Amino acid sequence: MAYELYYWDGIQGRGEFVRLALEDAGADYVDVTRAPGRGTGEMLKLMESATEAHVPFAPPFLRDGDQIISHVANILFYLGPRLGLAPDGEALRWFANGLQLTVTDFIAEVHDTHHPIATSKYYEDQKEEAKARAAEFVGNRMPKFLGYFDRVLGQNPDGGGHAVGNAVTYVDLSLFQVIEGLRYAFAKAMRHYERQYPKLMKLHASVKTRPNIAAYLASPRRLAFNEDGIFRRYPELDIEP
Amino acid sequence: MAYELYYWDGIQGRGEFVRLALEDAGADYVDVTRAPGRGTGEMLKLMESATEAHVPFAPPFLRDGDQIISHVANILFYLGPRLGLAPDGEALRWFANGLQLTVTDFIAEVHDTHHPIATSKYYEDQKEEAKARAAEFVGNRMPKFLGYFDRVLGQNPDGGGHAVGNAVTYVDLSLFQVIEGLRYAFAKAMRHYERQYPKLMKLHASVKTRPNIAAYLASPRRLAFNEDGIFRRYPELDIEP
Repeated sequence: MAYELYYWDGIQGRGEFVRLALEDAGADYVDVTRAPGRGTGEMLKLMESATEAHVPFAPPFLRDGDQIISHVANILFYLGPRLGLAPDGEALRWFANGLQLTVTDFIAEVHDTHHPIATSKYYEDQKEEAKARAAEFVGNRMPKFLGYFDRVLGQNPDGGGHAVGNAVTYVDLSLFQVIEGLRYAFAKAMRHYERQYPKLMKLHASVKTRPNIAAYLASPRRLAFNEDGIFRRYPELDIEP
Repeated sequence: MAYELYYWDGIQGRGEFVRLALEDAGADYVDVTRAPGRGTGEMLKLMESATEAHVPFAPPFLRDGDQIISHVANILFYLGPRLGLAPDGEALRWFANGLQLTVTDFIAEVHDTHHPIATSKYYEDQKEEAKARAAEFVGNRMPKFLGYFDRVLGQNPDGGGHAVGNAVTYVDLSLFQVIEGLRYAFAKAMRHYERQYPKLMKLHASVKTRPNIAAYLASPRRLAFNEDGIFRRYPELDIEP
């Protein structure tokens, strides 16, 4: 039975980290809110169910038969071994999950650059605060996170340019997406930082040419970045570090 | 061999969610930064190691022999079955992890009420923005999260007042801590919301009287909440919903 991915239509958002894993593995899946005859109503109905035992707080969530799994890192921890995208062995899987949760935190900080005060309000209503938060993000947080992941790549005893173990895992695919998004939203800062974190850039380039990823990126299933998603290009936030 | 917990000394912070599980289970553990002959230097040395393969991004992290596990939800996912605090069966464990990750998000939003612009700056330097963010948090986010967890308690087909399955899990202990913290930081809002989410309040009360938890709370190992932690009592942020 096909996996069912539930996420907001119209944006890459957090769902994209799951899509990249499903696409790379060539897995059979339905992107429910975008599928003919399905749609966002079905997702909302499940979230609002008064009887569902394992009701999720927010998208994305995945349905695999009777199992509903919410939160990106949880979904990828679950899917990893099933898709051949988890490292070998328990020990490395705990490390991979820790890395994915660091990606989660990084992404939450990206989101808060354009919504530092209230998710319920428009960006335009918190633009001044967003400029201040973006300055902190670009100046302090970006190099902290990017530097950490670059260091993890360098300290991997298996080498080979992977974050964990000796083969591509879902963590590598997520790091690819982080770099894609940062290049879109913080182009000026990335021009500066890319030279400093070459291992991460090399990983990005190698994921991009994986056949199933390349095919996905060229397909209509890959939506473009836009200003409703997590990574947004606002010229006033795209500042020099 | 004893578990080793690494977290900042002087605050409950994110480490407290791990401590509550270890304490409830009566597990043998060392709180490294507070232990005689150990200390924060040891934690920083590990974080700054240029050779450690599984270097963590930030505390808390746990060491169990050779295994280093970072992020609260990851640590609890790992410890749960070992401490007898995970639900029975795979299916419920994925749901528990999803709930714990929702607690993680809630806690991150609590933190950002006093640091909406920059973690690297003082609260006093972002007080006006903090007031705006706290208003959003108290008015919209608190009821959204509290309502969700209260609903999960009500929709648990096993009943019994637990978040997952038919016995206490680490998720219940974490929800106890969330309520403790919110009562400290947002006392006015909690007086308002407690009547609306009675299942959550009942869970809090029942966790508080568990023998090992009660003993821990009365011990010097339980630090008081303070204004260096995640839950902070600032009168100007403790607003009516």
